[in-house]
Amino acid sequence: MTQVAIVGLGLIGGSLGFDLVQRGYTVIGVARRPETAQQALALGAVHQAGTDLALVAAADLVMLCTPINVVVQTATAIVPHLKPQAIITDVASVKGEIVPAIAAVWPRFIGGHPMAGKAEAGLAVAEAGLFQRRPYVLTPTATTPEDVLITLITLVHDLGADLHQCSPEDHDQAVAWISHLPVMVSASLLLACQQESNPAIATLAQSLASSGFRDTSRVGGGVPELGTLMARHNRTAVLKGLAAYKQQLTALETVIQQGDWDILERYLSQAQQTRPQYVDPL
Amino acid sequence: MTQVAIVGLGLIGGSLGFDLVQRGYTVIGVARRPETAQQALALGAVHQAGTDLALVAAADLVMLCTPINVVVQTATAIVPHLKPQAIITDVASVKGEIVPAIAAVWPRFIGGHPMAGKAEAGLAVAEAGLFQRRPYVLTPTATTPEDVLITLITLVHDLGADLHQCSPEDHDQAVAWISHLPVMVSASLLLACQQESNPAIATLAQSLASSGFRDTSRVGGGVPELGTLMARHNRTAVLKGLAAYKQQLTALETVIQQGDWDILERYLSQAQQTRPQYVDPL
Repeated sequence: MTQVAIVGLGLIGGSLGFDLVQRGYTVIGVARRPETAQQALALGAVHQAGTDLALVAAADLVMLCTPINVVVQTATAIVPHLKPQAIITDVASVKGEIVPAIAAVWPRFIGGHPMAGKAEAGLAVAEAGLFQRRPYVLTPTATTPEDVLITLITLVHDLGADLHQCSPEDHDQAVAWISHLPVMVSASLLLACQQESNPAIATLAQSLASSGFRDTSRVGGGVPELGTLMARHNRTAVLKGLAAYKQQLTALETVIQQGDWDILERYLSQAQQTRPQYVDPL
Repeated sequence: MTQVAIVGLGLIGGSLGFDLVQRGYTVIGVARRPETAQQALALGAVHQAGTDLALVAAADLVMLCTPINVVVQTATAIVPHLKPQAIITDVASVKGEIVPAIAAVWPRFIGGHPMAGKAEAGLAVAEAGLFQRRPYVLTPTATTPEDVLITLITLVHDLGADLHQCSPEDHDQAVAWISHLPVMVSASLLLACQQESNPAIATLAQSLASSGFRDTSRVGGGVPELGTLMARHNRTAVLKGLAAYKQQLTALETVIQQGDWDILERYLSQAQQTRPQYVDPL
């Protein structure tokens, strides 16, 4: 395995390029815009770059790093150019729709999701070591060839990332809980505050908002296009999360209405005990 | 105005003590436990300290810094000891219940809420300058004597805090939006994640949770007693916030169910535009 083609040279594609060049892979970059290809070459993120998808012809491994909504069509478009033994993987944050669609056009495929993000996007913020000690999820299925899985396990190891393996469906439900549901929960807080009809109260609330509000509203105040893509491509899992969430919220509302303060405190204790299972308490 | 009594020597009471000693006030501390009184004296947070509420007899201004659930009973207990012209204020985070209750037993009263908090509580974490450039809300009513208001405005100025004035009810609705509602919203996220019945997905979600989940779940994973006190003493405003919140959440859920991606993106854009009105974008 020496030749890797990276299609899509943004934050993830560019960062993968830096790491793979450093680790001795030969890296070919394919970008939509010629300037991006030039920039990737100039930065040393790739050995060779261009805008023609036919560049993947030399690759043993193709990593699709395009936006999620064009991953499947990009896979379909490169198929005619691939070597028979070439492997495709992708880095999209949702897998349930994508994995069967690509495997149908190219069986030597495995879905992947390196979970390293930044507030900004694009090649300009790409960096070496982005995936180090960060989760990298692979989603093999019953039809994934063994050598395809082994190739990707090796790559994840080379990147210094933490390997996780699960089905595409389990991946999507897990990220719905910890990534997509929080966006909807947090955005609804901002939208609710906006409903205050008394301008004096609204202005006061804006003046008094502090770190608690800042943290709770952060992901909900993020890029709308991203939140929309999450919901669109992970609809079933997000809706399952929202249904469970509404149930819990209504339970809290009910005990507050009824003044069952012991039960409210028990619920909030459960929440307090749950959090360290997910994140370091900070 | 020279003599200030601080009843309750925790984070807020202790920090007020440091600042007021520094600014030339004579400060008398009253604590529930003798060790706390001794410690406040040793730290220089007060000039004189003890556990006897009768110590307030010398005070021109009494600042009630006890936990919210004993503020009114503490006010009632000190009344027999007060000089006729003494002023009472409190620092509780909810005002609608407390203000009329204390004004009924001592008309020379004004509610206050210095909005400086820390993750930990207690005198050990008290510090000088805690209120500097932080909001300090005063909640005068139609019956608040003019000189009482002026005395407190001077004090807020001396502390270097940012003065806000509003009715007790407006205060409570504003803090419900930016402080109490976020706790319920955030706790419900933790409780919802706990509902995942597939242990493989739950374990994966716990491994993959990162900064987005950390921020959104932070205030919901806080001290259960505090969240319970907020809901208990600010029930009406919290319930109003929860009702508006559920409406917004249901609107998001509906557009996701219907696949109205343009409308979802418009909602999320509104959320993105709302956030900078409340907090610095970070």
